[in-house]
Amino acid sequence: MISYRLEGSQGNARAGHILTRHGDVPTPAFMPVGTLASVKALSSAEVAASGARMQIMNTYHLWLRPGPERVAELGGLHEFARWPHAIATDSGGFQAFSLAERTKMTEEGFEFSSHLDGKRLKLTPEEAMRIQGLLGSDIAMQLDVCLSGTAGLPELRAAVDRTTRWAERCLAAQAPGQALFGIIQGGTNIELRLEHAETLGKLPFQGLALGGFSVGEPPAHMHASLVQIAHRLDAARPRYLMGVGTPEDLLVAIGAGIDLFDCVMPTRNARNGQAFTWQGKVTIKNARYRDDPLPLDPECTCSACRGGYSRAYLRHLFVAGEILALRLLSEHNLTLYGRLMREARAAILDNRYADFAAERLAVFRNLTDTSQPG
Amino acid sequence: MISYRLEGSQGNARAGHILTRHGDVPTPAFMPVGTLASVKALSSAEVAASGARMQIMNTYHLWLRPGPERVAELGGLHEFARWPHAIATDSGGFQAFSLAERTKMTEEGFEFSSHLDGKRLKLTPEEAMRIQGLLGSDIAMQLDVCLSGTAGLPELRAAVDRTTRWAERCLAAQAPGQALFGIIQGGTNIELRLEHAETLGKLPFQGLALGGFSVGEPPAHMHASLVQIAHRLDAARPRYLMGVGTPEDLLVAIGAGIDLFDCVMPTRNARNGQAFTWQGKVTIKNARYRDDPLPLDPECTCSACRGGYSRAYLRHLFVAGEILALRLLSEHNLTLYGRLMREARAAILDNRYADFAAERLAVFRNLTDTSQPG
Repeated sequence: MISYRLEGSQGNARAGHILTRHGDVPTPAFMPVGTLASVKALSSAEVAASGARMQIMNTYHLWLRPGPERVAELGGLHEFARWPHAIATDSGGFQAFSLAERTKMTEEGFEFSSHLDGKRLKLTPEEAMRIQGLLGSDIAMQLDVCLSGTAGLPELRAAVDRTTRWAERCLAAQAPGQALFGIIQGGTNIELRLEHAETLGKLPFQGLALGGFSVGEPPAHMHASLVQIAHRLDAARPRYLMGVGTPEDLLVAIGAGIDLFDCVMPTRNARNGQAFTWQGKVTIKNARYRDDPLPLDPECTCSACRGGYSRAYLRHLFVAGEILALRLLSEHNLTLYGRLMREARAAILDNRYADFAAERLAVFRNLTDTSQPG
Repeated sequence: MISYRLEGSQGNARAGHILTRHGDVPTPAFMPVGTLASVKALSSAEVAASGARMQIMNTYHLWLRPGPERVAELGGLHEFARWPHAIATDSGGFQAFSLAERTKMTEEGFEFSSHLDGKRLKLTPEEAMRIQGLLGSDIAMQLDVCLSGTAGLPELRAAVDRTTRWAERCLAAQAPGQALFGIIQGGTNIELRLEHAETLGKLPFQGLALGGFSVGEPPAHMHASLVQIAHRLDAARPRYLMGVGTPEDLLVAIGAGIDLFDCVMPTRNARNGQAFTWQGKVTIKNARYRDDPLPLDPECTCSACRGGYSRAYLRHLFVAGEILALRLLSEHNLTLYGRLMREARAAILDNRYADFAAERLAVFRNLTDTSQPG
């Protein structure tokens, strides 16, 4: 189980703690994504060094391999991945929708073919709870119906209603000792979102998540929705915005009242050669960095920047396809995300979050990489 | 410049030190290969943690990119790769032979087309010295003519003679402050090897290398040759066996009088899923490791083994294509090579190298992975 403790707030922004079986997670918090029980390219120690105290891992992927029974026999995800801090798992529903093949949804759940070997599988709310229980995460997510950002109202309404019925089935199948979060759907329809938030808020979830954002709609729409919705979620429980996002998104969402995030962006962008820095984005393969002796970001404390690796060296490694480039950029980006969370937290507790966010937003929005693709 | 100091010996096996501009290299020593100024998948700190105090980097690859002038402007290879210990560079000749396209060799040098963009390039002894001087390695290698293990005597003789003429041209073009090693050729023809060793031994090289081994001949032939040749190389200078080899090869070669090695094997095999352990080889993708909670090697102190990562987790990561698998296996294998060198050194100084080598050879030769490919 988990508990949430509010430590301070400014406006809708909140600083708090999620206390789990695997330690304290100060919030706002960003969860790096350890899809297959590994944050891509990084060691557990490097992930922890970024400040992260909770990872999210992927039920769909771990179900297909190595399999939840095997993970359970090997001591659960924490022992398996040698990650001593907290772990959340998603429900697998999003991947059943987006990654698996020939997916059919009924009231019972999803039926689909594994993207690895075509094997036909069935993911019901009960099965999602059983798998996450075996994986042994601290926080499980309910199975939900996630639609694209362009879905119409009748579709959204149907998705919301089914998600509610699945919420109740998940709660009935909740594994002992494991926290369970409900997932609020409704797209960018504010009324529907608020209604669903109220419905799920009455259920005994340990936290509430916003799903179905950042699935194709313009960021400005998401930001506008968050400002209207996030602070209306039950204040006694953690509020988690799933699958989001850029540093800008995070700053806006924290201001709106969100406590918890996950996103592949810092690590995926790193593997594509894009670094986030406090001066804006750096596309490392650009020719302008060929002779650049400076570190990625002189303000940064990650091992790439502190270690004195030059942009010229990072560019060379990236262009040559060396794994070390992916490692160093991933570590750098996660370090920035971790610091953003720590600074946001400190700003909230100091009652200066609005100024802090405005300042940082200006940097992230305007000082992007001015170079042409090299 | 470098100097060599003999500390002790047992039979032909020697323990000593190569003192360089970048610190002391206790010998016998294994040099991990940092082809493009990075030991693949690993950080400098991890390479150093394996016990390595000298890396070898690749002149051909670094010549093509990022270019030696750029490396020089950025402070040389040590600064570029953030490797504070010693660096050797090869001459680029082997890659001009094996990797480049449409290679022509004349008395002047090699002409070939870059394997990256087809650009026509010319590698002479003087150019090999100029490039290595710009790269700033502690030890440069002469340009030599390397033949396959099956070359006939007239070919071998011609290669040896040309290598001698190139040796003199390289010495005339030696960069100030940089040590230069000569390369003895002659295939498995003992007479030719000994003659070439004597010829090059008269030249003012700071070390002598054996080239052209492990290029297709059976290991037993190489071992037999080494036993006859190695101890005949000038005892006042370090003796370097290029591009070799397995743990078995190293044990035999050290017994024969070799001080220095380099090989891609520990890191390349790691990326192919093969771990060397003190109990024999482990092919990590084998199905037998699926549920194995043990570390790769309970005797090992690398971060994979000490960190408690199970074989089941390593197998999972490897099968799933996760970078962390390549990192952990690479670190493990280099750690074993580093420890093998330290133990060999201690055994020589304790006058028990013969017993030590026999014991270890039995393990490496007989206790191989008994599993079927999974």
